[in-house]
Amino acid sequence: MAADSNHFIGVDFGGTKILAGIFSPSLKLLKSVKLTTKSERGVEAVIDRITRAVRDVADEADLDLKQVRAIGLGAPGAVEPESGRVIYAINVGWTNVPLKKELEKGLGLPVFVENDCKASTLGVYHLELKGKPRSMVGVFLGTGVGGGLIFDGVLHPGANFAAGELGHMIIDMDGAKAGRAARGSFESLASRTAIFYRIKAAVKDGHKTILTDMLGADLEDMRSGDLRRALRRGDKLVEKVVAEAASHTGVAVANLINVLGPEVVALGGGVIEALGEEMMPIIQKRAEELVLPGTFDAVRIIASRLGDNAGISGAAVLAQARSK
Amino acid sequence: MAADSNHFIGVDFGGTKILAGIFSPSLKLLKSVKLTTKSERGVEAVIDRITRAVRDVADEADLDLKQVRAIGLGAPGAVEPESGRVIYAINVGWTNVPLKKELEKGLGLPVFVENDCKASTLGVYHLELKGKPRSMVGVFLGTGVGGGLIFDGVLHPGANFAAGELGHMIIDMDGAKAGRAARGSFESLASRTAIFYRIKAAVKDGHKTILTDMLGADLEDMRSGDLRRALRRGDKLVEKVVAEAASHTGVAVANLINVLGPEVVALGGGVIEALGEEMMPIIQKRAEELVLPGTFDAVRIIASRLGDNAGISGAAVLAQARSK
Repeated sequence: MAADSNHFIGVDFGGTKILAGIFSPSLKLLKSVKLTTKSERGVEAVIDRITRAVRDVADEADLDLKQVRAIGLGAPGAVEPESGRVIYAINVGWTNVPLKKELEKGLGLPVFVENDCKASTLGVYHLELKGKPRSMVGVFLGTGVGGGLIFDGVLHPGANFAAGELGHMIIDMDGAKAGRAARGSFESLASRTAIFYRIKAAVKDGHKTILTDMLGADLEDMRSGDLRRALRRGDKLVEKVVAEAASHTGVAVANLINVLGPEVVALGGGVIEALGEEMMPIIQKRAEELVLPGTFDAVRIIASRLGDNAGISGAAVLAQARSK
Repeated sequence: MAADSNHFIGVDFGGTKILAGIFSPSLKLLKSVKLTTKSERGVEAVIDRITRAVRDVADEADLDLKQVRAIGLGAPGAVEPESGRVIYAINVGWTNVPLKKELEKGLGLPVFVENDCKASTLGVYHLELKGKPRSMVGVFLGTGVGGGLIFDGVLHPGANFAAGELGHMIIDMDGAKAGRAARGSFESLASRTAIFYRIKAAVKDGHKTILTDMLGADLEDMRSGDLRRALRRGDKLVEKVVAEAASHTGVAVANLINVLGPEVVALGGGVIEALGEEMMPIIQKRAEELVLPGTFDAVRIIASRLGDNAGISGAAVLAQARSK
């Protein structure tokens, strides 16, 4: 290891994009680059793209890979952190991919892999909250819903490496189904997928929304940002669907507080980044209604300010911690 | 402290009964005594009764209180473990009672107080499972529903001392309400209270059950054991209500597994003691359906064999651990 190999690269690898960030020795983000994932091209092609994103981001910061000590990566789905193997990642259609091994071969640097939402939890905990709370639950609303648990300052893996699969928590057993997620699960009620599904279903049922003016009748290529714009313009349908998703999120947050009693619940992900201003007051209120009387004051519910950078930040934290 | 003051007394103090057990230095249960709580007589009277149960159980084992090193006690509701103060215990109508202080004054021995379900969790973990799993969730179905979380071999208190309030987890947001518990909460769907409530409601609606032959038309003084007897005699109504409670418990267990990934989920409490044989296969099956694919094999779901003694056992573990 060269004396100045003290930078870190964090990669957030998701269903639609690969985001890579290069961080200073004190984990300040220097530069980032984004590529589309193109999972339809197959595992090997995606690994090539991750490799490319890593090389590109070092170059963006006028740094050589020799100046990088380690790479951290958050991957969607179930990850076996020791081996760095992706057991199962439905968003990209992967099963049992030795991602750490393949990337280390291509890059000649140590690579550490973790579930994407657990990595994001590390990012919020260490870089945003400076590791101050003893316990924190990270809750990330994006295409799906995931999370991570910090107890006594340490990420809780779970016996099966699947702790933090918050999206699978059932909160409305007899509720409606939306897409692939289990009926009544948090994910089926509050993910971007669920929100889009409900808006499209309402439009089919004849409900009006300015989204159809913005995007066409079939609402193709809808994004969270479109919902924010529709909300700002007073769209009643979007307001209702987003408020429902927020209320459901409040129920899930209350469950997490009642079961775990964390000091902080930190919300993040694309949905919160785009719609947090509208959703957070509803989430707070609903959670407060349901948390055991007398215990709510000990908990802070916050929206992470790291936004889209939570994943790469946490991946960099992982790289630093594991390469010590 | 006398050289032979090496026994421990564990007390399980609940809404209807006070159970006290005296344990050998290696935490073998020697004798136990049971008194009714009589919370209607007020705080002071109940504290006197706890004191009496402690003295009685030592006497039952032909031991003097001088031969006891410490007393552990599990109390219903929210407990502040350091001060041994019962913050809030709805079952007995207590708020802010300095239980540790009062008992120490009366008994002249160190007393350690914990939430009853957390104490039971300690009992199952240390005395039944010998502390072998790294993580365990205790789930206790009785008059209410509560629990406790063990991570890395240690009881997780929660920032507000209210971690493990599993009964407040909402699993059927739009579900029916039963009694005092929040709508759709685990407790409102699977506690003894909820099961009795549903049976009584069904009888009012004209459904038939042999329970009315056994107990009279108003089903007064119904107990979990009555349900077991009715089940054994093929009672369809009881079978249906108990199966529903088990299925709901399976949903809650799946939620806990998906969020926490524990090595063991241990079920206990009066409902499981009486109806575990019928409920456990349904709980297992429902949980397996809902747990993230590929992760269920890492988890064991068991019914505790400690039964009614889980609470006093855990209280004794607490007494030993805290008086070291």
